[in-house]
Amino acid sequence: MFKTVEWTRNGVVMIDQRVLPGVEVYRTYKDYKGVAGAIKDMVVRGAPAIGVAAAMGAALGGLKIRSNDPAIFKKEFLNVCKVLAATRPTAVNLFWAIKRMKDVAARNDTCGVAALKMLLVAEALAIHAQDIAICKRMGRHGGKLFKNGYTVLTHCNAGALATAGYGTALGVIRAAIESGKKIKVFADETRPFLQGARLTAWELQKDGIDTTLITDNMAGYMMKKGLINAVVVGADRIAANGDVANKIGTYTVAILAREHRIPFYVAAPLSTIDLKIKHGDRIPIEERSSKEVTHIQGKMVAPKGIKVKNPAFDVTPNALVSAIITEKGVVRKPYVKGLKGLFD
Amino acid sequence: MFKTVEWTRNGVVMIDQRVLPGVEVYRTYKDYKGVAGAIKDMVVRGAPAIGVAAAMGAALGGLKIRSNDPAIFKKEFLNVCKVLAATRPTAVNLFWAIKRMKDVAARNDTCGVAALKMLLVAEALAIHAQDIAICKRMGRHGGKLFKNGYTVLTHCNAGALATAGYGTALGVIRAAIESGKKIKVFADETRPFLQGARLTAWELQKDGIDTTLITDNMAGYMMKKGLINAVVVGADRIAANGDVANKIGTYTVAILAREHRIPFYVAAPLSTIDLKIKHGDRIPIEERSSKEVTHIQGKMVAPKGIKVKNPAFDVTPNALVSAIITEKGVVRKPYVKGLKGLFD
Repeated sequence: MFKTVEWTRNGVVMIDQRVLPGVEVYRTYKDYKGVAGAIKDMVVRGAPAIGVAAAMGAALGGLKIRSNDPAIFKKEFLNVCKVLAATRPTAVNLFWAIKRMKDVAARNDTCGVAALKMLLVAEALAIHAQDIAICKRMGRHGGKLFKNGYTVLTHCNAGALATAGYGTALGVIRAAIESGKKIKVFADETRPFLQGARLTAWELQKDGIDTTLITDNMAGYMMKKGLINAVVVGADRIAANGDVANKIGTYTVAILAREHRIPFYVAAPLSTIDLKIKHGDRIPIEERSSKEVTHIQGKMVAPKGIKVKNPAFDVTPNALVSAIITEKGVVRKPYVKGLKGLFD
Repeated sequence: MFKTVEWTRNGVVMIDQRVLPGVEVYRTYKDYKGVAGAIKDMVVRGAPAIGVAAAMGAALGGLKIRSNDPAIFKKEFLNVCKVLAATRPTAVNLFWAIKRMKDVAARNDTCGVAALKMLLVAEALAIHAQDIAICKRMGRHGGKLFKNGYTVLTHCNAGALATAGYGTALGVIRAAIESGKKIKVFADETRPFLQGARLTAWELQKDGIDTTLITDNMAGYMMKKGLINAVVVGADRIAANGDVANKIGTYTVAILAREHRIPFYVAAPLSTIDLKIKHGDRIPIEERSSKEVTHIQGKMVAPKGIKVKNPAFDVTPNALVSAIITEKGVVRKPYVKGLKGLFD
């Protein structure tokens, strides 16, 4: 089985998600700037995986700081965190993981730099290990929502490749199957980055899960034909009111699901829930390069000079969300109360 | 300006729409089988353009029949028509154009084969010329629906490339602009064949029309942001009740338009209206090769062996259609009465 992000003696190793499924290449990053670049360029993507990678990047950055002076170390470590935090704006797991790393540094500012470095590495490894455990718990809670024989639509990749392993949305599907149910999957290809075609189809196929690939604009047709029983997606940030920022196109899938009376589930760890943001419209939406739209795998598919919009995410209003699946259980409306309750 | 389909001394010439916008290549088809292949392979596409190409293919097939015996000519000509009719199932303009050609043959079965051949060529040229005139009339009727300053979303390509020239949906946009209004366009890229990115963006850019390209899954986001004032699309077949078969994804755009209280217009000539089909669910939907989904411009973007669905069209129920723009005027609900009235 592949590993999405791994801490090794040589550095942080990541499977290059830009070139899957054609090539399975692992890249090794020996300093935090390399990790920051990998997050920005989407070598690694998916909110939980970005969090894990950023934590490892921070640990790596900490290890490489030469000074043994705690004050200098602190200053340089905060700069490492700043660079890592500036990579992508929408997925809150990035900031959550960096905050955990900063907290370790703040809590242990008297133990000496050498010990602190080890604590930072340990924290990154803990975040990694916890992420897999959290996905499995999410799966146990969410898997119950799918009946035997269901065909489930997913958008983007919220799988093992988007996490430390197992996945959020795909973890729920995996758990349902592991509990003995027959579940089939429809995967939206998810333009422009094609996470569905390249990543979801690839990892589900590796697991022998019955998967059918469609273009994003076919989901409505499949629902109208009665071929979809439920939708499950991941999330990049969930506001306190249950509004969900996720990969561009998720909002449309949610509208289609309601139109066809199909439940629309979101699977995400607590680290994706941002109680500081009251409404989804305050979640910053990343606008990425127009080249992601005009070029596909290096091939130009649009006329030169054409104007492009490329928002990487959209926000699905809480009213369209049937339930949010977390590692602490399944939350339903009213979300303000339910989500807050998870943290009490 | 480019020509989509043209009758020349050397054969039927078509711009190869599979390789636009990277390359502007014209292909010459010297026999009807070549024309049939070009329709099947989508060298030419778009319901009206398919009709024109099929008529020219039939004329070409007629010209090449060697026998001067009217009975043998008739038999061979019907075979030509049969081959052309078997190319694509959804766009009714194909069958409409072939029927016009067959009717010419039937009406003139006593004038001698040499004269009949000329009449068939004349009919194909008439269909071509009428198609442009019809688009311009559609534009005059439909252009009034757009207010100055509107931004209009379109899906697929219902432009000059989908017709003999000017376009249906894009013809309406062109007419509104020609009448002095400022109109901007958002173009869905329209996977899997990318007619929006490759064709609509290209032909609107050539005309200097302000065009922004988005992936199909971004339309909902743009509507939610208030960036879209109206939608206009073409059609491949319209049932007697106003249900509209059009490029896959149109149904989703229509649901999104209603959700955001944006008018959803369909522009199509009478030759696209099929009164023999009562409801849209009886319109045959073409399923095309899975390779169109797994490969983009020859590049593989999905794991080998993945299952794929590739319906080329979907059906938008009449309830979601604000108006149908034809060369005889704009039809609104109830469509059964309005559409029938067009033919009286």
